[in-house]
Amino acid sequence: MNPPQPLSRQSDATLTEQLSNRFAEHIRQRLMAPGARLPSVRECARRHGVSPYTVVAAYDQLLALGLVEARKQRGFFVRDHHRRDAEAPAADTPSPAPRLAAPVSATMLVRSMFQPPGSQPMPGLGTLPIEWLDLPMLSAALRRVSGPAQLGPLSLQYGEPAGDLRLRRALSMRLEDFAVKARPEQIVTTIGATQALDIVTRSLLRAGDTVLVDEPGWSVEYARLTALGLRILPVPRGEDGPDLAVMQRLIEAQQPQDRPRLYITVSVLHNPTGASLSLGTAHRLLRLAQAHDLHIVEDDTYAHLAPAHLPRLSALDGLERTIYISGFSKILVPNWRVGYLAAPPALVDRFIDTKLLTSLTSPGVTEQALAHCLEQGLLRRHAERVGQRLDAARARSVKLAESAGCRFASPPRGLFGWVDVGVDTERLSHAMVDQGWLLAPGALFHATPRPTTLMRINFATTQDARFWRALERTRDGLRGTP
Amino acid sequence: MNPPQPLSRQSDATLTEQLSNRFAEHIRQRLMAPGARLPSVRECARRHGVSPYTVVAAYDQLLALGLVEARKQRGFFVRDHHRRDAEAPAADTPSPAPRLAAPVSATMLVRSMFQPPGSQPMPGLGTLPIEWLDLPMLSAALRRVSGPAQLGPLSLQYGEPAGDLRLRRALSMRLEDFAVKARPEQIVTTIGATQALDIVTRSLLRAGDTVLVDEPGWSVEYARLTALGLRILPVPRGEDGPDLAVMQRLIEAQQPQDRPRLYITVSVLHNPTGASLSLGTAHRLLRLAQAHDLHIVEDDTYAHLAPAHLPRLSALDGLERTIYISGFSKILVPNWRVGYLAAPPALVDRFIDTKLLTSLTSPGVTEQALAHCLEQGLLRRHAERVGQRLDAARARSVKLAESAGCRFASPPRGLFGWVDVGVDTERLSHAMVDQGWLLAPGALFHATPRPTTLMRINFATTQDARFWRALERTRDGLRGTP
Repeated sequence: MNPPQPLSRQSDATLTEQLSNRFAEHIRQRLMAPGARLPSVRECARRHGVSPYTVVAAYDQLLALGLVEARKQRGFFVRDHHRRDAEAPAADTPSPAPRLAAPVSATMLVRSMFQPPGSQPMPGLGTLPIEWLDLPMLSAALRRVSGPAQLGPLSLQYGEPAGDLRLRRALSMRLEDFAVKARPEQIVTTIGATQALDIVTRSLLRAGDTVLVDEPGWSVEYARLTALGLRILPVPRGEDGPDLAVMQRLIEAQQPQDRPRLYITVSVLHNPTGASLSLGTAHRLLRLAQAHDLHIVEDDTYAHLAPAHLPRLSALDGLERTIYISGFSKILVPNWRVGYLAAPPALVDRFIDTKLLTSLTSPGVTEQALAHCLEQGLLRRHAERVGQRLDAARARSVKLAESAGCRFASPPRGLFGWVDVGVDTERLSHAMVDQGWLLAPGALFHATPRPTTLMRINFATTQDARFWRALERTRDGLRGTP
Repeated sequence: MNPPQPLSRQSDATLTEQLSNRFAEHIRQRLMAPGARLPSVRECARRHGVSPYTVVAAYDQLLALGLVEARKQRGFFVRDHHRRDAEAPAADTPSPAPRLAAPVSATMLVRSMFQPPGSQPMPGLGTLPIEWLDLPMLSAALRRVSGPAQLGPLSLQYGEPAGDLRLRRALSMRLEDFAVKARPEQIVTTIGATQALDIVTRSLLRAGDTVLVDEPGWSVEYARLTALGLRILPVPRGEDGPDLAVMQRLIEAQQPQDRPRLYITVSVLHNPTGASLSLGTAHRLLRLAQAHDLHIVEDDTYAHLAPAHLPRLSALDGLERTIYISGFSKILVPNWRVGYLAAPPALVDRFIDTKLLTSLTSPGVTEQALAHCLEQGLLRRHAERVGQRLDAARARSVKLAESAGCRFASPPRGLFGWVDVGVDTERLSHAMVDQGWLLAPGALFHATPRPTTLMRINFATTQDARFWRALERTRDGLRGTP
């Protein structure tokens, strides 16, 4: 295993302080999850080249900070802050049931997405690397709409509840590329695709309802649904789409009043497997949905990285019982938080109302800047460039992965690879984080986390042979230890 | 009553089309609420100077469009689209219980906030008029952060989950003006104050819980809470603050497991009464909150329009059980949707997690542009200018209101007046909308709408003597009709 970054004997801080700060940082950034065990004193001393006394002193500091707890005979563990809140001495009113919160592992991954960029690429990253994005284009587009004459109508009033009309028109045109027919009145802009998902679920379901999801899938989505008090019914996701026989059994196994009314899916370039729905499965899925009066949310977050000809459910269905969701975080600009939904006409007003209740409107400035990029064909050309670059990166990453003895569980396509590395990937990622490599272990893509040897890689950030060498070494090290 | 804008005989559209379009527009914009009765054919013909035949033809067109329905012997009524969805023929699965939705009246008002500005001011408006805002300042601030060098770090990654650090630092300083001590780590930026309210309620409560609110209050907030499945317990809001005796009785009347754990209040320049919490009531309220283990959300949306010395609960309490919420929509820029919350340290992480699950992050571009305005003292100087202008507007509006025979139910302060006009304000606003004046009837500020002679006026947009003359005439007309 690679040694971690060495502690410095020239630093102003003592070795104890440096060590305790490093752990504190990892815990606060959730790179070490609540409940995780700290290395044994001897192991930690060996890895950092310090005396066991230094380690004990550092662990004591973490204890005093309330970041870890000691368990008799077992060692030191990261404290669970949510649990600590719940255990705080309450007044004489009865203690409430614990509130729902995101699974720790999902929160950990999603928080890790916000780390400042290090010198090393992040193989577990969910987005394109920043150097692949077109900053001059974004800057020019934003400046176009930020002069006083343009800015006034976009800023001084709350704006249209459905979102900027110019953007909705451009999106309506853009959706024709996928044969999805949505008039601008059927489109509602949102604070990223995330808010679109939130708005749709909140409008159509309520606490206690069931909801069908893909498994594996994006666990932050599971966390969001769970926090709304919904009961998740995971449908195995195969190469052609969801396992419809399982889906039907899941639906029919529920009491009539508990039957799911919504299925949320990434049909094209599914996260994490990269698989896309086949035309036949799409057709059968829509028939099943009709028979059971299901609405379907088609989350097309990776739309711009996929060939346009891949079938969308929303195209087959004509937006009758599908709701199409997408955004620009994965192709243009993560932090502007511009996403949208296209919905059956009968549902649009309900979604607008929920948008009003949760964020009132969405910022028109960035929406019009993106409308400009769409109208001028800038997004299309950018997406083509990214697509070519991604193809080359994928070819290189796949070769490196296979040389390192990894196997692809699903044919490599799009941004993500779903890779079997042969050891438990949760253990692997804890060991790799210390070496500066952030992984996305497979447990993060399951509704109920379980040990798995699969993990998700980002083809754009795994072209570095050093990463695969580090992975091989670490994996071989783990194979030797229980 | 003033005649409505006349129909044109020179138009390309027939009189029938013009009339039906006008109603269709009102219905779509929710200026006519679902369930509202259209004027009788004779009355409508008289008011628009057309034949009864034209009216019947126009109503038939609305019928064909599905916008209205005819009820035997009773006339035409605006259709309820939410209800129509629920009544759509379902498959053979059992029909679901009706989903929660915003009360129609609240949705109607909030949607009306998004009308394009007409030639006449809107007395029911919830914001400052656009000409009071400082567009050149906003444009310059946005351009400062939209050059490629500044924009990159603000756009190409998801950004910090808690929000832009520079803005959080500036807000931490700004809060000192109100004696609210919040470190930048205690602050989370949000998509307007609306999302801050949503995040806090979703994090602390779940469907079925009770929540204390002020009454009168902002009914969109009631709608938001109801849509989350919460049960609202309204506390009468008086001149000094909430009626604490009623609050205590409400708490103690619940079964222990149903007792409220949260009270949401606008303590300073309360909407719609303009009243502010007295120091004594603030102190007693915090004691009551402690005794019953209540958290308090202090919604300080109108912070910048109030004298800084008015006591904030969050200042008294030191952010131990209060959560402070504010934003910039009411003073600088409604559509940028920048708001924030400042919370007890133990709760911050939970709020950040909920933000992640509902919108991931918030846009850094507008956050840093506002940070610039705060750091340079531009916001402070702008707020001073607005304050002086508002004082003058208020003096003039109060004089006009009193001359028109209206009485202030609460001493006029801040942006809003709470006015008794002597006739049912729901009927009054329907009659005034046709003349181009949008009112905010008192029913919109009650948890359970009820007939009331009170309404909210915006002092900045009621300085026009024509409005008060129109109101007098319309009121006197309504007094003569049942």
